[in-house]
Amino acid sequence: MPLSSYREFDAALAFAAQSTERTMERLLPKGDEGEAQVFEAMRYSSLGGGKRLRAFFVLAGATLFKVGAVPALRTASAIEFVHAYSLIHDDLPAMDDDDLRRGKPSCHKQFDEATAILAGDALQTLAFEVLADTDTHGDPAVRAHLVVDLAKAAGAHGMVGGQMLDLLAEEQDAEEMSIGTITRLQRLKTGALISFSCTAGAILGKAAEPMRSALSAYAHDLGLAFQIVDDLLDVEGDPSVVGKATGKDAAAGKATFVSILGLERARAQASMLARQAAAHLEPFGDKADLLRQAANFVVSRRA
Amino acid sequence: MPLSSYREFDAALAFAAQSTERTMERLLPKGDEGEAQVFEAMRYSSLGGGKRLRAFFVLAGATLFKVGAVPALRTASAIEFVHAYSLIHDDLPAMDDDDLRRGKPSCHKQFDEATAILAGDALQTLAFEVLADTDTHGDPAVRAHLVVDLAKAAGAHGMVGGQMLDLLAEEQDAEEMSIGTITRLQRLKTGALISFSCTAGAILGKAAEPMRSALSAYAHDLGLAFQIVDDLLDVEGDPSVVGKATGKDAAAGKATFVSILGLERARAQASMLARQAAAHLEPFGDKADLLRQAANFVVSRRA
Repeated sequence: MPLSSYREFDAALAFAAQSTERTMERLLPKGDEGEAQVFEAMRYSSLGGGKRLRAFFVLAGATLFKVGAVPALRTASAIEFVHAYSLIHDDLPAMDDDDLRRGKPSCHKQFDEATAILAGDALQTLAFEVLADTDTHGDPAVRAHLVVDLAKAAGAHGMVGGQMLDLLAEEQDAEEMSIGTITRLQRLKTGALISFSCTAGAILGKAAEPMRSALSAYAHDLGLAFQIVDDLLDVEGDPSVVGKATGKDAAAGKATFVSILGLERARAQASMLARQAAAHLEPFGDKADLLRQAANFVVSRRA
Repeated sequence: MPLSSYREFDAALAFAAQSTERTMERLLPKGDEGEAQVFEAMRYSSLGGGKRLRAFFVLAGATLFKVGAVPALRTASAIEFVHAYSLIHDDLPAMDDDDLRRGKPSCHKQFDEATAILAGDALQTLAFEVLADTDTHGDPAVRAHLVVDLAKAAGAHGMVGGQMLDLLAEEQDAEEMSIGTITRLQRLKTGALISFSCTAGAILGKAAEPMRSALSAYAHDLGLAFQIVDDLLDVEGDPSVVGKATGKDAAAGKATFVSILGLERARAQASMLARQAAAHLEPFGDKADLLRQAANFVVSRRA
């Protein structure tokens, strides 16, 4: 049953998570060679957890352009591999120093730091291998396009740049951080990859530029809403539901959307952005209903 | 003046290093944004040093198939970015814990650990972005092919797997390591990327399979010779010439080609492999003279 036959977001998200996880499982290395420890760490940190919201965005975007299941699932897997790599590296002692991830020990706690660094490195490599492989799309220009766009989203001008900003922000006086600075930080750190997730289906379907722009605009607003809710959950969330420690931002004296806007205005801003995100989907009519529901989910989620 | 007009290896290597370095300089991010520290770390660790032997292999291989300068230089740069990323991560305290690299402080000593991890991550991403970009080749199938082959060489079944094996080998009794185990370790850790460097020109030139196989065989033997010489330099080399600390393997009680074969047999083995590597170049006639000289250089180098 394809994603497009789902009417309810929860069921569609669960389907996207399960089918992407099955694809990831097949794509990940396994074996009993001497170096298998790094295979195990890659599997440990990328399988069996997470909402798979990025995978959902790829699959939901792909249904708009009648893209086949295999290209969509392989692309979704590649993005989830990059997401998993970024979490492994972000959790390292030299970075955010998190012992818990998705309710279980983070990769360097379960294995060791060296293995965690290598597992993250190899997950990133795997993502590009999967996208460029002939199985992902019959047209090599589409495959190369996916590689370039993922690289832009993940690299120094995207996710890595955002994480650098985030680390440097911790050393800064929180009072000096403006809403503009935090918005740019989050656009790079999480927004760029979410944006690629939302537009990948359009690349796979060789959609016309206005279609891709509409999805990009949706992703832009939704990504920011997503991050504001992340900040809200760090203040209001239940650690057992969120699956990681909360209250970390305040304890670190870190500037967040909540510390600058306050709880109420942050909540209002997230809702406004989610409505604005959904409005960009107009050109797709009711075919984009799942993406509309996703916008609602992002601001009402508890974890 | 193209590489093919050089007759002497030393001059050709210097030309390859300079022209690749210029291309890398243009491809690396720069700017004064808040996250510029990661740009600086990427530039610090990838520019201004190294023999650029991998870049030479790409350029020398490309001349065999009349590949243009831009595709060859961009591909060479991508491989040097991956090589630089691997050195940054290998030098980290959790890995080989090296304070010195190419005669200057390693990335995490010059900046900090978090910045070094991120700089390595973003250098890897940049490599794939460069290969998949339309400027690298007019045929998207060639670009996708380069991405897949680089990913295979660098990932869990290549370079990262080899580094995992190397880290685990340090915990093992050196007596239990066989020549077969060390050979496999080095084929993954350094051989895979050297092999891709030697065959990339054939991919760019859409060469027939037997041509690519000949270069692959050359790379296979040469990569192993290269590593044996690395082990020899760790025993016999002058740190001020080698540009990093020597005697580390013996101090760590690490099994190497030298610890198993002894100095004399290791030297003989490296020479034999270099001759064997050169023999694979026969189909190319005297057009492959620079690659033949490279085989000789690899076993006679002092750093």
